Amino acid sequence: MKDPIDIRRRQMMLGATGVAAAAGLGGFSATGFAAAAEKGKPLPPYASWKDAEAVIVHSSNTMETRRGALGTSVITPSDRLFVRNNVAPPDASIVADRDGWKVSLEGVRNAREITVGELKSMGINTVPTVLQCSGNGRGFFAHKAAGTQWKVGAAGCVLWSGVPVAVVVKNLGGVAEGMKFMTGTGGEKIPEGIDPKTVLVERSVPVAAMKDALLAWEMNGEPLALAHGGPLRLIVPGYYGVNNVKYIKRLAFTPTETTANIQSSGYRVRPVGEKGKPGQPSMWEMPVKSWINSPAGTGDVRAGVLQIDGVAFAGTKAVRRVDVSIDGGKSWKQARIIGPDLGRYAWRHFVYPVKLGPGSYTLMSRATDSSGKTQPEARVENERGYGHNGWRDHAVQISVV
Amino acid sequence: MKDPIDIRRRQMMLGATGVAAAAGLGGFSATGFAAAAEKGKPLPPYASWKDAEAVIVHSSNTMETRRGALGTSVITPSDRLFVRNNVAPPDASIVADRDGWKVSLEGVRNAREITVGELKSMGINTVPTVLQCSGNGRGFFAHKAAGTQWKVGAAGCVLWSGVPVAVVVKNLGGVAEGMKFMTGTGGEKIPEGIDPKTVLVERSVPVAAMKDALLAWEMNGEPLALAHGGPLRLIVPGYYGVNNVKYIKRLAFTPTETTANIQSSGYRVRPVGEKGKPGQPSMWEMPVKSWINSPAGTGDVRAGVLQIDGVAFAGTKAVRRVDVSIDGGKSWKQARIIGPDLGRYAWRHFVYPVKLGPGSYTLMSRATDSSGKTQPEARVENERGYGHNGWRDHAVQISVV
Repeated sequence: MKDPIDIRRRQMMLGATGVAAAAGLGGFSATGFAAAAEKGKPLPPYASWKDAEAVIVHSSNTMETRRGALGTSVITPSDRLFVRNNVAPPDASIVADRDGWKVSLEGVRNAREITVGELKSMGINTVPTVLQCSGNGRGFFAHKAAGTQWKVGAAGCVLWSGVPVAVVVKNLGGVAEGMKFMTGTGGEKIPEGIDPKTVLVERSVPVAAMKDALLAWEMNGEPLALAHGGPLRLIVPGYYGVNNVKYIKRLAFTPTETTANIQSSGYRVRPVGEKGKPGQPSMWEMPVKSWINSPAGTGDVRAGVLQIDGVAFAGTKAVRRVDVSIDGGKSWKQARIIGPDLGRYAWRHFVYPVKLGPGSYTLMSRATDSSGKTQPEARVENERGYGHNGWRDHAVQISVV
Repeated sequence: MKDPIDIRRRQMMLGATGVAAAAGLGGFSATGFAAAAEKGKPLPPYASWKDAEAVIVHSSNTMETRRGALGTSVITPSDRLFVRNNVAPPDASIVADRDGWKVSLEGVRNAREITVGELKSMGINTVPTVLQCSGNGRGFFAHKAAGTQWKVGAAGCVLWSGVPVAVVVKNLGGVAEGMKFMTGTGGEKIPEGIDPKTVLVERSVPVAAMKDALLAWEMNGEPLALAHGGPLRLIVPGYYGVNNVKYIKRLAFTPTETTANIQSSGYRVRPVGEKGKPGQPSMWEMPVKSWINSPAGTGDVRAGVLQIDGVAFAGTKAVRRVDVSIDGGKSWKQARIIGPDLGRYAWRHFVYPVKLGPGSYTLMSRATDSSGKTQPEARVENERGYGHNGWRDHAVQISVV
């Protein structure tokens, strides 16, 4: 969304001097996030429709939502949602005939190819989920884990519409005997002369994850954008982003996990210095996590009453409570959970009002899920900086004046 | 949201021949709505960020979402949401310093002016509501009621974030004695030399409507756009759009209704040919209503299984059930309500799967609210074509081939 005044500003930004000029424009008072606090790379063409002031462009395949750019309305606007592609996305021509896109259903009794057009005749449901990159929070690790240095913004909560995988599978006679995994394969182009397994985006999740999974063609009420996996994406609610395979061209029920590198050695949690391999924990279900969005720590805060707000979620579980500390974790008070409950796969916004006099404060939040699990204080050190849900690193430092 | 391919198409459209060229581009297969089926006027500058293919521009103050452009994800994307201004919106400069916007709180024990910045320190909540113009469906009336000829698209379901009015009022000592109405005044510029009462956007609702009302600065996760009332709008959940006063500059608790024309004679339900006056029913709470979005009736449908989908809502009440007829209202079958329940002020999507062979069909839906009230078959004839919730006129005609 762009108001006339924002459009003028953007046109200015995108003028002769390019997006980097935004750095000189300073803060964005309306939303409280500092525009282009980090020097911005330009948005890649396939994501040119993103709000340039709300995202940090790390590379043409990785864009993060700025802390404080999420608002408080539960759903992350499409033009502010992070982007993370493991491989460059396919050519935009694949969204020219969305209904014609084909996905091969395998490992079911009556395996066959199905077009999106036919999927649309099978059923429709909408599932709100938190989409979060496995490496969200990697930027807080001390050992400089390889990969994008995400802070909090490789996550969003969005609405997916499509057909339940369970409905499609039922139409095809059910899952074949002995299949233990649901394996999705992305439609990215594999460069020639490379062993496909080294770059193929193919992920396996336990077959039980099929329960609320969707084959989605719509996000937030609009046809699914190329940047987010359109024309068709596998949505595995409660699981890390990588399992939500974009441009899905094959959905197979398999007896074993795929041997593609992204599954066998990639996205495995292991000690710092070790190589990834099968048997190590895979980045599947997301644990309980929360962080503060406002204040975002990008400028001084005026003394008085402050509404500290943030988000909390727990993968496949609901959020039971959120506590907030304003003294660096020494004492905690329960925050109020606000807004509509979109189900256990969505996040909740929390608010904690507090009167603050001048001084320095370290604000942090700590969520507890419906099973009673609470976010740990520390991160779990691991080679690739995956799955960070420790509350200490997610703190916001503020100066109240 | 715009994919690269859509952006290219739009650039083409907005080129030498202007937006009207879109008429030649034909249907939009991804979403099933016919692009520019009605010859499009250009979007006005303050709403230039709207999706030109998803809206019908009636005038610079009235834009309607095309039937079938709503998707199935519960929330209406901001760039597809209808626009209706009673008076031209204020200059865009009012959204340059959002936190500096002032609203005068009156008819409370401690009346005073409050800035948006201060409101943000008082509290935050998010309420999803259906926003619907009183005249939505006017285009179906036979007597050519004066006003915009809306069909179904002067409605949407969006997320509002702001401070609860009840919280603000409590901070100001509560509502003053004897106040029976909550009266909001818009900040539109009144042309000189005109009696302000003839154009002032000032509406009164019963004070009980304060319960879940918000002073909202955010819609769908982004700062509230000028086109939708930014920097600050009064949200009265379950009430027709006109009561949700944009650019609110005064919120007063009053012993009587305002005498502004928009309240005293405007938005009054009366027999055809009669003038509006106080005492006639005012356009306040919305009754139960539903319609089918897909198929949208804009092209032939292929024989086979069809997922008929649409939306249903009931103002301040929840939707209990929706029935669908494929034979012009002779027989009815219960539809399935899908997606997340965002609370009683939001709408629900319904889906009814049916196998259709070649032929002509008249599809319609009929919703029932939590109090047991069902949509009537016929419209209530009235001078200005307000409040149409009759199911017969909202039918979709399709040819299955």
